[in-house]
Amino acid sequence: MTMMALALRDPAELSTDEPVPERAPGEALVRVRVCGVCDTDLQLARGYMDFRGVPGHEFVGEVVAADDAAWVGKRVVADINAGCGTCVECMRFGGHHCPNRTVLGIAGRSGAFAEAITIPERCLVGVPAGVSDDLAVFAEPLAAALHVLDEIDALERAGAERRAVVLGDGKLGQLIARAIASQGVATTLVGRHTHKLELARAAGVETYLDGDLPQERRRAPLVVEATGSEGGLAEALRIVAPRGTVVLKTTVAAELTVDLAPVVIHEVRLVGSRCGDMQRAVDALASGAVDPLPLVEARYPLARALEALEHAGRRGALKVLIDVPGPQQR
Amino acid sequence: MTMMALALRDPAELSTDEPVPERAPGEALVRVRVCGVCDTDLQLARGYMDFRGVPGHEFVGEVVAADDAAWVGKRVVADINAGCGTCVECMRFGGHHCPNRTVLGIAGRSGAFAEAITIPERCLVGVPAGVSDDLAVFAEPLAAALHVLDEIDALERAGAERRAVVLGDGKLGQLIARAIASQGVATTLVGRHTHKLELARAAGVETYLDGDLPQERRRAPLVVEATGSEGGLAEALRIVAPRGTVVLKTTVAAELTVDLAPVVIHEVRLVGSRCGDMQRAVDALASGAVDPLPLVEARYPLARALEALEHAGRRGALKVLIDVPGPQQR
Repeated sequence: MTMMALALRDPAELSTDEPVPERAPGEALVRVRVCGVCDTDLQLARGYMDFRGVPGHEFVGEVVAADDAAWVGKRVVADINAGCGTCVECMRFGGHHCPNRTVLGIAGRSGAFAEAITIPERCLVGVPAGVSDDLAVFAEPLAAALHVLDEIDALERAGAERRAVVLGDGKLGQLIARAIASQGVATTLVGRHTHKLELARAAGVETYLDGDLPQERRRAPLVVEATGSEGGLAEALRIVAPRGTVVLKTTVAAELTVDLAPVVIHEVRLVGSRCGDMQRAVDALASGAVDPLPLVEARYPLARALEALEHAGRRGALKVLIDVPGPQQR
Repeated sequence: MTMMALALRDPAELSTDEPVPERAPGEALVRVRVCGVCDTDLQLARGYMDFRGVPGHEFVGEVVAADDAAWVGKRVVADINAGCGTCVECMRFGGHHCPNRTVLGIAGRSGAFAEAITIPERCLVGVPAGVSDDLAVFAEPLAAALHVLDEIDALERAGAERRAVVLGDGKLGQLIARAIASQGVATTLVGRHTHKLELARAAGVETYLDGDLPQERRRAPLVVEATGSEGGLAEALRIVAPRGTVVLKTTVAAELTVDLAPVVIHEVRLVGSRCGDMQRAVDALASGAVDPLPLVEARYPLARALEALEHAGRRGALKVLIDVPGPQQR
């Protein structure tokens, strides 16, 4: 069996005879319906993680085959971290930090810029009827965004205000700002693009242009660095309050030069954050608490996935979706 | 009134006519008995923080005058952070992060390499009769060392083992290893000096030479970076477990080049840690839980403080103490 997929070789190419992945015991075969392009996909295309094959980890699909027949026909999203399920890390962190994990479209597992994927059934999360495909495809990045709330909760328990500054008005910063604002966090987004800041304001997020953040918004208990730029972390360290937390959301592949003396003097926490709880994200979408649809900038059919990748790589692009036609539509 | 003191000017000099600091309302005048040289003092001498004047913040002394007469004649140590006492930060963190704080011998307040200091009475902690001057002078660095326990407790609540690796067998690493080992943490010290590792082993700390840390000691829930070297943080990030904590104890004044991608991928926390609870430190010394005396390498009278500073600056030096003669001894 073969399928259409975008594959990272040298260079990236659209393939129409990519092998359909074979379902191992305990895995589901999922037909992809819609997928989203993430900056990590762009980094992979540039050689990050030495990944070769089909990328793509933001998806919604329909289960075609599974050991547990109850899944078949269901619309699903999935935790992209497929751990061994038996090690200490899997017991504690549900596969997110298993040393032998595969990660959908990122490490050792063929991804979702394709007609089909396989993923362990224990990673699946069902999508309720009220959540459209376009909403559901945001579940993976939204789960990561909501993960920031755990840090805010910890700070609040230690007596801090429920207040955060997000640096970066790109699609990640926008989604994080929406996610935490939806949970009662007084959220300020700082960015460089007037039209993007307008998008965030429409979602109830306070915004400032880079450089205009007033004194009373500084000394923030929590700052999220989502600029993906070299200066972002240094700026976050200037804004965060003593004993506050800086959340690093971008896998900055390049080495950074940072003066870490402020981390020690102000006893700041720098916390890396990658993936989150998919069920929590689906719940937030189902309740309408978070609406990511204004962040969709363009969509392409899978046959034009190379264009989708190119579009997503344009400076300042927001979310680009890829539609995967079903069996009837081909 | 003048006194003897070591003063950082250009260059550092021993002065015999340094003015005795004037006691402001709410402050105590304290005659210094013994003080200790910290790496921060060496950094200040090299220009860190642009501090000029008398350095020194590890001390034990005797109260000569105070608004509260009950303090007079008492042996004391003190929290070195003198906050305004009224701001939000003072309410939450007891002066450690007050934006208007002075810090004894570090910022805006004349320090303890002198016959006398002033410090707010609210910063004083009494020293019980059973705690010698040589023990009490370790209260300040020990308080900072014990601060690491809060991170270990947080990890334990999240399900991690009570286990830590300390990088660096200098006086700071040694003290931290002793401090946390005394509180039931399975502690491994990694260093480069066989004779220093022997000192730590005598205190019940497991040790390995740099490069020899076995696989089963890696993936540690908590790693303390106390090497003060550029490579220390990178090594800490290689050793720490996913979702673990790296505590940065050294104010690395120079800019560091660090690949922070592992922080995000493994969702590690990087926590700066500076000062701790002085009462907790005095209690640990009084109970005998921690014995720092084997870390004393040399002692000099105040009149030879320049030699003490030079000695402390030698590569690999452990703790150097300075004895301040009392009125009868001059």
